[in-house]
Amino acid sequence: MTRKILVVGASGLIGHAVADELSKNHEVIRASRNGDERVDMSDIDSVRALFERIGDVDDVVCCAGAAPFKHVTELSAEDYEDGLRSKAMGQINVVTEGMKRVADGGSFTLISGILTTVPIHGSVASAVANGAVESYVVTAASELPRGLRINAVSPTVLKEATGYHSAFPGFKQVPAEDVVQAFVRSVEGVESGQVLTVWG
Amino acid sequence: MTRKILVVGASGLIGHAVADELSKNHEVIRASRNGDERVDMSDIDSVRALFERIGDVDDVVCCAGAAPFKHVTELSAEDYEDGLRSKAMGQINVVTEGMKRVADGGSFTLISGILTTVPIHGSVASAVANGAVESYVVTAASELPRGLRINAVSPTVLKEATGYHSAFPGFKQVPAEDVVQAFVRSVEGVESGQVLTVWG
Ligand SMILES: NC(=O)c1ccc[n+]([C@@H]2O[C@H](COP(=O)([O-])OP(=O)(O)OC[C@H]3O[C@@H](n4cnc5c(N)ncnc54)[C@H](OP(=O)(O)O)[C@@H]3O)[C@@H](O)[C@H]2O)c1
Ligand SMILES: NC(=O)c1ccc[n+]([C@@H]2O[C@H](COP(=O)([O-])OP(=O)(O)OC[C@H]3O[C@@H](n4cnc5c(N)ncnc54)[C@H](OP(=O)(O)O)[C@@H]3O)[C@@H](O)[C@H]2O)c1
Repeated sequence: MTRKILVVGASGLIGHAVADELSKNHEVIRASRNGDERVDMSDIDSVRALFERIGDVDDVVCCAGAAPFKHVTELSAEDYEDGLRSKAMGQINVVTEGMKRVADGGSFTLISGILTTVPIHGSVASAVANGAVESYVVTAASELPRGLRINAVSPTVLKEATGYHSAFPGFKQVPAEDVVQAFVRSVEGVESGQVLTVWG
Repeated sequence: MTRKILVVGASGLIGHAVADELSKNHEVIRASRNGDERVDMSDIDSVRALFERIGDVDDVVCCAGAAPFKHVTELSAEDYEDGLRSKAMGQINVVTEGMKRVADGGSFTLISGILTTVPIHGSVASAVANGAVESYVVTAASELPRGLRINAVSPTVLKEATGYHSAFPGFKQVPAEDVVQAFVRSVEGVESGQVLTVWG
């Protein structure tokens, strides 16, 4: 069955690969701050305006959000708040507005990452934002109305993210294709409240 | 060895029990918004001023922070942000300022709770704040300087928290004494980067 799927962050490394794969069988709307459909997910009014423009959808996928990389002794309250605003509240905003717009039985798939619990140099602010996302997904699943589902995909560093490889010494890298399939599993499958790890 | 220990939230149900127990062997400074030593941990300037008044300490314990209880369809962006500001950033602020003030080899013990991953009606905003706290503790442990340690205690509902019992149907309740001992284990032991669950 062809579904209408919103992909937030569709111009990014992961979002682009996810949007391309989902496009094979579904109608995909590509959104980001500078994309086809413009949205800044950290601003809930911008998210609401996006849904007003595109109308109802069947599923929503988020592949966006970032936090500052700094040593814990250098991180300010503002740094943590920047990460929470972008990656945690950004994605939560998409669900908060989306749950009024997604069709019965539809799904949300957010993104976290291995840094939630596995540290690398400077990753504490990312962990804080990811931890909020994962606990949201795991618990919101039990309250979503109309059979809506929600999951998060937690990738380790991607083979294709060459700029980051030295920051992940000895970590297995995963191909974008494996991460893409976790999104497909969340969108087309039946699971909810899960963190789908793609750690190689 | 007698230690000088700051307890933030020392007037609360858990903080009071923790401060009383630690007082048997240590010097305890009791802080909260309306307490002996005044601090609003959600305001980092207030936390900095507290440490300027009390000087260096050996350990810091946090038993404070709250998030709104509302169904996920009723939670606004502001609700999530309130929880993050109080429970997550509040406790992170205490560590950010505290790591300049805590003696070599000292410890931080924060509080999360079973709601991080186990939902009850209306607990999603608590989960989001707790998830941020737990990922912080687990990852910050590897970057703290001077042998500083950090853990979180995650209690389920307390026997003594009678007002909350109906919100936790069928959940085992734990005596405050068991929660107190998890704080003692974190302060006087050697563990770091752990979430010490007290779930009965
Ligand atoms: N790459 C990896 O190896 C890896 C591994 C694990 C986890 N992750 C996580 O996966 C997510 C995506 O990673 P990536 O490597 O694909 O990132 P990326 O290449 O930088 O792409 C990010 C995407 O999100 C959009 N975006 C950023 N902020 C936004 C906002 N506030 N509102 C709407 N769209 C926004 C960007 O487009 P605009 O700039 O036009 O908005 C872009 O489309 C990140 O959260 C990252 O932490 C990545
Ligand atoms: N009670 C339970 O069964 C249970 C179970 C699991 C987890 N928890 C968690 O444990 C923590 C404490 O619970 P509790 O039942 O002991 O709460 P409580 O009785 O309401 O006590 C909260 C304490 O924190 C202080 N406080 C609140 N906000 C503060 C702030 N911004 N800055 C400084 N101090 C602040 C309060 O004093 P002031 O008002 O004077 O500031 C009080 O001392 C909460 O985060 C709760 O979610 C509780």
